[in-house]
Amino acid sequence: MEKLYVIKIGGNVIDDEQRLTGFLQTVSQLRGKKILVHGGGKIASAIGEKLGIKPNYVNGRRITDAETIDLVTMVYGGLVNKKIVAGLQAMGTDAIGLTGADGNLIPAVKRPVKDIDYGFVGDVQPAELDPALLVLLLEKGVMPVFAPLTHDGMGQVLNTNADTIASALAVCLSRRYAVRLIYCFEKKGVLADISNEQSLVPLIDRVLYEQLKAEHKLADGILPKIDNAFEAINNGVQEVVIGDARDLLCNASGPVSGTLIK
Amino acid sequence: MEKLYVIKIGGNVIDDEQRLTGFLQTVSQLRGKKILVHGGGKIASAIGEKLGIKPNYVNGRRITDAETIDLVTMVYGGLVNKKIVAGLQAMGTDAIGLTGADGNLIPAVKRPVKDIDYGFVGDVQPAELDPALLVLLLEKGVMPVFAPLTHDGMGQVLNTNADTIASALAVCLSRRYAVRLIYCFEKKGVLADISNEQSLVPLIDRVLYEQLKAEHKLADGILPKIDNAFEAINNGVQEVVIGDARDLLCNASGPVSGTLIK
Repeated sequence: MEKLYVIKIGGNVIDDEQRLTGFLQTVSQLRGKKILVHGGGKIASAIGEKLGIKPNYVNGRRITDAETIDLVTMVYGGLVNKKIVAGLQAMGTDAIGLTGADGNLIPAVKRPVKDIDYGFVGDVQPAELDPALLVLLLEKGVMPVFAPLTHDGMGQVLNTNADTIASALAVCLSRRYAVRLIYCFEKKGVLADISNEQSLVPLIDRVLYEQLKAEHKLADGILPKIDNAFEAINNGVQEVVIGDARDLLCNASGPVSGTLIK
Repeated sequence: MEKLYVIKIGGNVIDDEQRLTGFLQTVSQLRGKKILVHGGGKIASAIGEKLGIKPNYVNGRRITDAETIDLVTMVYGGLVNKKIVAGLQAMGTDAIGLTGADGNLIPAVKRPVKDIDYGFVGDVQPAELDPALLVLLLEKGVMPVFAPLTHDGMGQVLNTNADTIASALAVCLSRRYAVRLIYCFEKKGVLADISNEQSLVPLIDRVLYEQLKAEHKLADGILPKIDNAFEAINNGVQEVVIGDARDLLCNASGPVSGTLIK
């Protein structure tokens, strides 16, 4: 099967224009078929503050209320997504900006209310993803660039975790391509001691993961990423790499310098 | 040749949620291949005001400065475009939201400075439009929905007149389809007397257009629309209709109730 890279880039890189440009150059240098999924970044909060949209928290969890979903639709789906697309075009990469509403690419449901009503937050319905349109774009040499937004099929755009979108896309395309899912962030990879960049864990399998969790060695923030990674692997994705955005090229094809999960 | 409708919808309808929903329902009812191009609407100005972005005018002409291009990229490319796409999906129309940067669909150049520097405004380069990706989407049954934005190929998004985008797309696709370009707005069609809705001009050809202009019968606002229409017809588009958004269905296929230009 042909190789496909599904690359997730987080908000920290997006917020820093220089780092973002460097990252997009690396993405452009990466040969082969690829999909980019970007997070939101702090710019939505900054613009929201100017607009007088107050962050709405319940039990410490951020709620996506009606004002906030409009805000993130503008900022993630418009400003951030189109800047990335125009930037990639300038580097010779033919990119197309998308949300999960476009082409009905990522159907989702508004998160069911249990303890907390998260508001307009979407839970992806992995079984409902149809890869046909994405395959068409990829085969035409076009690189899909996803904003972290989905829709409920009833006209409502939904705020959705970018890691989860990347994982769902990787799974859905693994029937057609040998997919490597690459989570890019600001650390070298998964660290056994978050304060020590030298404590990289180069390879994690299920056994080691359970052990690291039992020893409480992993930072809370990295757990959902690793869970997403195993979810992807259990469903057909070949490999997942968690690593530094600057190491994308070797994490894609060389000897991995981040954490390989398989 | 198979029929294709290129439909332009203006800001007045977009600003009115109820009218917009009604219009999208009509678009969904229209059978066959179709492309929608939407204008901006006043919502960008309202959000700009809240953000403290002052409208910048030179000699009475609105300038797209750096803050304003970010604003319209957010609002047109994000908020308005994705609301339309999600709305169409809910009505069973598989739509995909696009700007001219996506897939490099509409290359443009920043308008050259003569008397006025319009800022980040794009002049479409019609000869550079490549219809291949749009044909791929249309043949897959997906309806492209364009925001009034293009790019300069060097990383800059540009604010671009939606009428011109519609005309350029219609021309570029007329080699492949029998294109009817439909400009939807809030009047019945071209009026010989703007204050009298009964003064509809049902058919305009070049001779009549010159005559109406010489008699100063046409409102200033309609002239660029008619110029765009003739530009399209001179370059392969079969027919252009200017009419009321509510009359879309008959302006598309029935006896035209607006103004037919050919």
